Amino acid sequence: MCTAASLRSGGLFFGRTLDNCKSYGEEVVFSPRSMPLWRGGGEHYAMLGMATVRGGYPLYYDAMNEKGLCMAGLNLTESAGYGAPAPGAANVAQHELIAYILGTCASADEAERALGRVNLTSESFAPDMPPAALHWMISDGRRDVVAECVGGKMNVYKNDAGVLANEPVFPAQMFNLRGHMSLSAEEPRNALCPALGLKPYGFGMGAIGLPGDYSSPSRFVRAAFVRNNCSPAAGGGQSALFEVLGSVRVPRGCCRTDGGEAYTMYSCCMCAARLTYVWTTDCVGAPRAVRLRPRCADMLVYPSGLT
Amino acid sequence: MCTAASLRSGGLFFGRTLDNCKSYGEEVVFSPRSMPLWRGGGEHYAMLGMATVRGGYPLYYDAMNEKGLCMAGLNLTESAGYGAPAPGAANVAQHELIAYILGTCASADEAERALGRVNLTSESFAPDMPPAALHWMISDGRRDVVAECVGGKMNVYKNDAGVLANEPVFPAQMFNLRGHMSLSAEEPRNALCPALGLKPYGFGMGAIGLPGDYSSPSRFVRAAFVRNNCSPAAGGGQSALFEVLGSVRVPRGCCRTDGGEAYTMYSCCMCAARLTYVWTTDCVGAPRAVRLRPRCADMLVYPSGLT
Amino acid sequence: MCTAASLRSGGLFFGRTLDNCKSYGEEVVFSPRSMPLWRGGGEHYAMLGMATVRGGYPLYYDAMNEKGLCMAGLNLTESAGYGAPAPGAANVAQHELIAYILGTCASADEAERALGRVNLTSESFAPDMPPAALHWMISDGRRDVVAECVGGKMNVYKNDAGVLANEPVFPAQMFNLRGHMSLSAEEPRNALCPALGLKPYGFGMGAIGLPGDYSSPSRFVRAAFVRNNCSPAAGGGQSALFEVLGSVRVPRGCCRTDGGEAYTMYSCCMCAARLTYVWTTDCVGAPRAVRLRPRCADMLVYPSGLT
Amino acid sequence: MCTAASLRSGGLFFGRTLDNCKSYGEEVVFSPRSMPLWRGGGEHYAMLGMATVRGGYPLYYDAMNEKGLCMAGLNLTESAGYGAPAPGAANVAQHELIAYILGTCASADEAERALGRVNLTSESFAPDMPPAALHWMISDGRRDVVAECVGGKMNVYKNDAGVLANEPVFPAQMFNLRGHMSLSAEEPRNALCPALGLKPYGFGMGAIGLPGDYSSPSRFVRAAFVRNNCSPAAGGGQSALFEVLGSVRVPRGCCRTDGGEAYTMYSCCMCAARLTYVWTTDCVGAPRAVRLRPRCADMLVYPSGLT
Repeated sequence: MCTAASLRSGGLFFGRTLDNCKSYGEEVVFSPRSMPLWRGGGEHYAMLGMATVRGGYPLYYDAMNEKGLCMAGLNLTESAGYGAPAPGAANVAQHELIAYILGTCASADEAERALGRVNLTSESFAPDMPPAALHWMISDGRRDVVAECVGGKMNVYKNDAGVLANEPVFPAQMFNLRGHMSLSAEEPRNALCPALGLKPYGFGMGAIGLPGDYSSPSRFVRAAFVRNNCSPAAGGGQSALFEVLGSVRVPRGCCRTDGGEAYTMYSCCMCAARLTYVWTTDCVGAPRAVRLRPRCADMLVYPSGLT
Repeated sequence: MCTAASLRSGGLFFGRTLDNCKSYGEEVVFSPRSMPLWRGGGEHYAMLGMATVRGGYPLYYDAMNEKGLCMAGLNLTESAGYGAPAPGAANVAQHELIAYILGTCASADEAERALGRVNLTSESFAPDMPPAALHWMISDGRRDVVAECVGGKMNVYKNDAGVLANEPVFPAQMFNLRGHMSLSAEEPRNALCPALGLKPYGFGMGAIGLPGDYSSPSRFVRAAFVRNNCSPAAGGGQSALFEVLGSVRVPRGCCRTDGGEAYTMYSCCMCAARLTYVWTTDCVGAPRAVRLRPRCADMLVYPSGLT
Repeated sequence: MCTAASLRSGGLFFGRTLDNCKSYGEEVVFSPRSMPLWRGGGEHYAMLGMATVRGGYPLYYDAMNEKGLCMAGLNLTESAGYGAPAPGAANVAQHELIAYILGTCASADEAERALGRVNLTSESFAPDMPPAALHWMISDGRRDVVAECVGGKMNVYKNDAGVLANEPVFPAQMFNLRGHMSLSAEEPRNALCPALGLKPYGFGMGAIGLPGDYSSPSRFVRAAFVRNNCSPAAGGGQSALFEVLGSVRVPRGCCRTDGGEAYTMYSCCMCAARLTYVWTTDCVGAPRAVRLRPRCADMLVYPSGLT
Repeated sequence: MCTAASLRSGGLFFGRTLDNCKSYGEEVVFSPRSMPLWRGGGEHYAMLGMATVRGGYPLYYDAMNEKGLCMAGLNLTESAGYGAPAPGAANVAQHELIAYILGTCASADEAERALGRVNLTSESFAPDMPPAALHWMISDGRRDVVAECVGGKMNVYKNDAGVLANEPVFPAQMFNLRGHMSLSAEEPRNALCPALGLKPYGFGMGAIGLPGDYSSPSRFVRAAFVRNNCSPAAGGGQSALFEVLGSVRVPRGCCRTDGGEAYTMYSCCMCAARLTYVWTTDCVGAPRAVRLRPRCADMLVYPSGLT
């Protein structure tokens, strides 16, 4: 389970939390232009992001390319459904999609067009790695889109909310958000009974009704509220984005599942203007940062600190 | 557990629900002016209401007197605390209070003054009947007050909300109501993120956040919302009051306690202008009605239909 | 806006609320077997229900046929999308659907098969009556189904929840219901912090979180909670069904829309065993009842009392 | 507005957020044993904490003394009411209380006894500084207490929840917490309708109902949930405490008041075992730390970074 968000304040800031019960050895990985990243792929845009490296190949969770286009994959366990490879089609396996889109597209517009041509397949990277049921948020300096493959059909949505979580599908999340439209950063007015003269007893009461739990619809609404009300002016876009991600953080121990404790393993913020990937594995402590150097010719792997 | 409410529309309409696991043989009882109703009491105002008759004496749950003053007792299980009888004081046992106030007071103002003089005691009516931990709502055509005896001290509050439930004490219920002040009968406006263009997807969305469960704070807020927004214009005050009470009704089966299923055993509406006591034990079906005849000299008992 | 529900207790009880700002002259209408009810239709099952009669033709909101099959149409304003008439197809206009299904089907199974053959069209009954955007709940003594026509495609769903409201589409309502799965008619246990020794302060606390407002998703959840927990044992199926419908009643004044006050104009309960249609326009007062007599040869119109 | 919390994991970790619209020049201040900190006070325990220094005198918001006793003051705007100075009484002005208690007490037990002797007064530090309406949380390695002065009467409560926010008074916050007792870090079970077979659609659903807004009762419940479920095992007590405080953080822009944007200006964590005061003004970034050196004879002021 995860949450993603974007912010624009002197360029794009894009990030996500990754919530899981255990690490799969994620590391921060730079892939140079010349490194083959998908079947039949040649030269491509360089990219930097979080990935599990298997057999020398980075399986990206989220990344930014040298053009500042950002993309993250998040669980969509029940609804995601990919197709079978079709002869003559632009077959892209689910695990290749981030590399394929970031490798070939310089903008969200280009990504949207590319997604329209893709036949996303359920082929596995390896027999012991069944395809992950995901959807994706893709952002550039101008706009955000969401890509969901349901029943083998690729749907691409404009995402004005600027956030993404997990189930249900994006249109259903947006429907649910409409039920929270009266939540406000302002002080509440007394609409229940004006004659009663009810007054606030403190601040922060305009957002009463904002859900505080860790379920996917609640994280979507909460992230949308903070993302669309927080002020990047004060600490800049990176600080504001980490505020958004902090609001949907899952502290260790607060989510006990059959598979163990699920918690926020890392939060990251990609800054398109500076081409940096910044991440932290803890709720306090200095985040680490790596810069994407487009001309670097070598694959680089930075230890993430995930355990 | 219970909820009480008042409405004014061509005079006072006052009513309550009684929520319990079993009936104690409640009946609708008229007490004539001459019938002794409390220790040392003489001639008094006649009254009509729901009571359990024990040893020929009506123990009122709620009633109206011939002046149209209405009063109901509701559980306050944790907070209510009565005093010991004191020599020379105006000692009134908890089970006598409704009869004493309705017998001697013609208005909420008079009731408030009388409550200020009373020493409310924890004396039992009978060894097998420990004193009930209650608080009371008292209403006339002009205003509502709440009386709570906590730690032996009688507190009387002006009740502008016009409703009462159970725990916590009335000031704490009013504090909690302030947290729901933005709930509205109007359609919601998009305060979460104006740029997103969120729109309602149907009506009734201004009250999203109104609690729908059967706990006492939730019933207080829900009754306050409906009481202060419903239109008596359409069906008259009685119909509107039953709408308020219907909104806090506990359907059988929806509240399972250690003592069995708690549910709304009856709902009643007293009309001060017509001096009628109207009640129903079901959620549908014609309510029954009895008229208070001030000059009638006999105690009258009407079967309530409670089983 | 509306809510529908079914209950089975010695046969099917099926009903709905109709929430609107004004009446369209709805009346209770019996249609005999011989009366033409749709284009090309001949002899059919007799039916009884609430309808607006236009040009001598009953436009049903909800009805039961002589086999005890029941059906109700509810708003689905945003999602419903019908097709165009197609040559050779079983074209049924939206306003004909209830009559067509109840006229030709004796069970939910038969209805499901018939719906699979139908091409539901957006043809209007009259130039001043644009097609209503609806979905339908259909119930017999064994099961409930929901029919939704989205983008011209008819989807039929098994409805184990036994209730229906408005937007969003049925699968999304069921998804949302899963978010409320821990609501309980039982007393809550202390899961937040066992060491704290938190205890209930009254009954009804197991359902804290049940939404109390009038929006469609909230009415769906509330009706589902009450429907699946209330005890028909006490007052019988009709009483229990009216409890369910009472829990989603919209009191006049609590929903103010641009088009005026929306409120529950009527609630009805069809009893399949007795073939009766029972309805009420008020929250109190004896409901009226009419019996369906299959062999009656005349169209009968009973004044509904709606104003 | 503020939230405080304690955790015990190899000794006490105690901290708080301070939410406000502007800084009053708070700095981290060490007060040596010999520095006079209240009227008539002599030698006392050294202490370290956040304070505004006025006329060379530190007005503490929160601090820890050399014995590891910690204390924080939080707004209680409506309910706090101090007394007038009384001749012969142990008069302590509201602004002196933290210094007085930390200066003279080595444990929560001693603090509780001292609070029982104090006459807390509304005297001002300066004409332009009216007394702040506060209540206090005091913690040592064994337990937490809350001190509230209401109507001139000092109430000291055992605080098993281990958190504190603002209005209402502590017993009312604990009452409200009981309404959330079924919130769980575990996956939810289907209690709404077992026959329906409802299943979770992701993790984190056991806490659905946890409030996510910034009002005081919501912050109290949320902090209590996280504090009592989070695992200090992973990152240690300091990390876990910052998780608790992070869950009630107010991002800049999400709380707009008449007085400007209220937001979390700093979060701090005092570690009793190491006698360190750790704080951060941002949601990311390395926190700063200072160590309390009991024998140091000089007042030390560390710039806090608050702006």
